[in-house]
Amino acid sequence: THVPYTPRRFTEEEMLQRSQEFFTLLNQRRSVRFISREPVPREVINDVIRTAGTAPSGAHTEPWTFVVVSDEETKHNIRNIVEEEEEINYKQRMGDKWVQDLKKLRTNWVKEYLDMAPYLILIFKQTYGILPNGKKKTHYYNEISVSISCGLLLAALQNVGLVTVTSTPLNCGPQLRLLLRRPTNEKLLMLLPVGYPAPDATVPDLTRKELDDIMVFV
Amino acid sequence: THVPYTPRRFTEEEMLQRSQEFFTLLNQRRSVRFISREPVPREVINDVIRTAGTAPSGAHTEPWTFVVVSDEETKHNIRNIVEEEEEINYKQRMGDKWVQDLKKLRTNWVKEYLDMAPYLILIFKQTYGILPNGKKKTHYYNEISVSISCGLLLAALQNVGLVTVTSTPLNCGPQLRLLLRRPTNEKLLMLLPVGYPAPDATVPDLTRKELDDIMVFV
Ligand SMILES: Cc1cc2nc3c(=O)[nH]c(=O)nc-3n(C[C@H](O)[C@H](O)[C@H](O)COP(=O)(O)O)c2cc1C
Ligand SMILES: Cc1cc2nc3c(=O)[nH]c(=O)nc-3n(C[C@H](O)[C@H](O)[C@H](O)COP(=O)(O)O)c2cc1C
Repeated sequence: THVPYTPRRFTEEEMLQRSQEFFTLLNQRRSVRFISREPVPREVINDVIRTAGTAPSGAHTEPWTFVVVSDEETKHNIRNIVEEEEEINYKQRMGDKWVQDLKKLRTNWVKEYLDMAPYLILIFKQTYGILPNGKKKTHYYNEISVSISCGLLLAALQNVGLVTVTSTPLNCGPQLRLLLRRPTNEKLLMLLPVGYPAPDATVPDLTRKELDDIMVFV
Repeated sequence: THVPYTPRRFTEEEMLQRSQEFFTLLNQRRSVRFISREPVPREVINDVIRTAGTAPSGAHTEPWTFVVVSDEETKHNIRNIVEEEEEINYKQRMGDKWVQDLKKLRTNWVKEYLDMAPYLILIFKQTYGILPNGKKKTHYYNEISVSISCGLLLAALQNVGLVTVTSTPLNCGPQLRLLLRRPTNEKLLMLLPVGYPAPDATVPDLTRKELDDIMVFV
């Protein structure tokens, strides 16, 4: 069945003000690789995950699992797995060009933030679902849907003044899935350390493309 | 070079209030397939695209192009291409199961909203870039980055009371790319019709998973 949909309507002036304010807020987002140990209220994390769960998904499959890790030992195990693989990635798998492209970001395989951040959010995509009768249920466009949901998560974090760095730990998926005891239909898509920025946090001095470089009007 | 990063800090009470309010806002988002012809201020569209452009991207490649179509004839041409392909998709390519999964959404291949919506936003992923010296530049994780950026776009639209339906027109990419004269490194990822909801808009009566069904705490 279908139901009427009558969302709140804003005046043109309100729309313009809201669209500018939201741009200003999100334009201040940066990927932060220096995260403070300070604790963050758990209820806020619940809310940002709830927000991520409002994303659209192909055929409404909601193909996401958010594993929120605050346990110190588990965080350290995750760090060990990620650093070990990342060192091999940087030294062998990525190739000179990729490593070169990352130079200006000054990233490397040492990820202190994986111990420091009060929460690590590991985002799994469910490549298929299991129906009540035990059969597999196809999850159309699961990676796109989960990435959109990650976009909402990033907006929700920015909205409360928390920081993260979007990361896709290459080759760590299988080990992290086992560590966190996730089922075989789930594949790790992203790992986001979440917390307040460290007091001395720095970010690469990057600029973003202008509107004219990303938009074409027809 | 790196620069200090000291974003605005909120109190715990403010964080909780903001996280709840943002969840409430985004939880009201629905995919709307009945869009009003009413015009929408162009500047608001510029702002939501700017907002999408603040997304993180693998190695800061910003691999997105947003084609905003308001020209009536182009919209109609897009509709013709999409409807023609979608009819074949529904009748031949998708298979009974997929069509069955979509039944409850009551979607089919007739897409009136492609004529009605004041704007169609076609989101292209740049699968590679071109360096000043003419060489190809790899765009790591371009589909994930562009999908995250689409998540920010959806949040920005919801924030101003505009609606859309996230769609991935199967098999229409090449024709739409040619119609819009986009270069060969760009591939269509999503098509979003944007506007106010039609006064009599309805949506499928869906529910979303509870927090406990999407979050695991360790
Ligand atoms: C990657 C992706 C592809 C989608 N493709 C279509 C589509 O082609 N046609 C359509 O009507 N809806 C499409 N949708 C919308 C979903 O059907 C919708 O998000 C889902 O039913 C949940 O409803 P909601 O967005 O109102 O929460 C798509 C959504 C996503 C995320
Ligand atoms: C899909 C994706 C993967 C990324 N992977 C990593 C990563 O593995 N390590 C890292 O430090 N940053 C990673 N980043 C962050 C980007 O380097 C960052 O978004 C980009 O440099 C732009 O900076 P900004 O987010 O501060 O705007 C990733 C971003 C995306 C979207």
